Amino acid sequence: MSDNDKAPIDFWFDFSSPYGYLLSERIDEVAARHGRKVRWHPILLGVVFNATGSAPLTSQNPAKAAYSVRDFARSARFLGIAYRHPSRFPLATQNAARAFYWLHGQDCTLARHFAHATFRALFVADRDISAPDTVREIAADLGVDRDSLAAALQSPEIRARLKAEVDQAMQTGVFGSPHVLIDGEPFFGADRLPQIEKWLETGGF
Amino acid sequence: MSDNDKAPIDFWFDFSSPYGYLLSERIDEVAARHGRKVRWHPILLGVVFNATGSAPLTSQNPAKAAYSVRDFARSARFLGIAYRHPSRFPLATQNAARAFYWLHGQDCTLARHFAHATFRALFVADRDISAPDTVREIAADLGVDRDSLAAALQSPEIRARLKAEVDQAMQTGVFGSPHVLIDGEPFFGADRLPQIEKWLETGGF
Repeated sequence: MSDNDKAPIDFWFDFSSPYGYLLSERIDEVAARHGRKVRWHPILLGVVFNATGSAPLTSQNPAKAAYSVRDFARSARFLGIAYRHPSRFPLATQNAARAFYWLHGQDCTLARHFAHATFRALFVADRDISAPDTVREIAADLGVDRDSLAAALQSPEIRARLKAEVDQAMQTGVFGSPHVLIDGEPFFGADRLPQIEKWLETGGF
Repeated sequence: MSDNDKAPIDFWFDFSSPYGYLLSERIDEVAARHGRKVRWHPILLGVVFNATGSAPLTSQNPAKAAYSVRDFARSARFLGIAYRHPSRFPLATQNAARAFYWLHGQDCTLARHFAHATFRALFVADRDISAPDTVREIAADLGVDRDSLAAALQSPEIRARLKAEVDQAMQTGVFGSPHVLIDGEPFFGADRLPQIEKWLETGGF
């Protein structure tokens, strides 16, 4: 089978997910080494958690919350990725996710650059990516017209697109962030990266 | 610093924890490569979960429960460890844990053999390790006197020892299984094995 025949990988994440950020910094290069492309799907973990009765790690018991904050930073160091725990956490990501889907409809490479810039704005520069202004600034730095984006964030089409993506994710079995699907096999968590690599290498184990 | 000066590693687990079983098959050899010994501490995750408001992975939402069962087996294959998901799961482990502490009071090597045999009885042979009879059979196969063990399982001292271990674990910040502590640094989950190895290699990163 030539590389062109290989199905893309799906990658679901919330822009406020630390482990989603860590995997976002590695998933494309790992997939590319095995001739795969990755489809990125920002979703709203709050909606998923409400539907499934889950909660963010840092809203769980104090021991687990304290460990999680420590593990976010240590896992980033382990992977060699810059990380500063955000002063606002978790935070709403619907504006960032809607901007992603609007940009993706025009230029998928631009959408990918926007996604990386948004993750880094939150997890390196500690910016408030919940604010529409911040989302517009991040996009404007990539050459996107602010007013068109502002209009898009309010458009019923883009809102419906995000809702459809979240619904589709839940139907696929996504219950957290990050979640990766390779030829029907699900992987949850940035710590499954070694298993993802082996799966791509061997076609399943 | 000579190897003899290095502090032991602490390893907390519940005998019904799949990821605890996976780590139990690797932690001693990883530690030994870096001149460390490991102190094993079976605990009762049910008590910890009651105190912290948590729940077993397979009692959480259906998508996460289904994924977890799949991930237990895949993670075992990834690590090259035999695994069969138990037909009784989760199950009570106080008899196994009490037997461990009683044996440990006499012979720590025997206690380690008993722990491995108990984990494998559940996760390879699908035996009901909640039953005192099974625990006695596992111990008898290692040369332990059944009647002495039967008496020990009922003794107030052994019950108090297990309770003290569970209390101590929670005071240390243990919220799940497996949990490892190296020179004050906590690691949760069998998937933190690569970070544990790097920490032992480098003294922290």
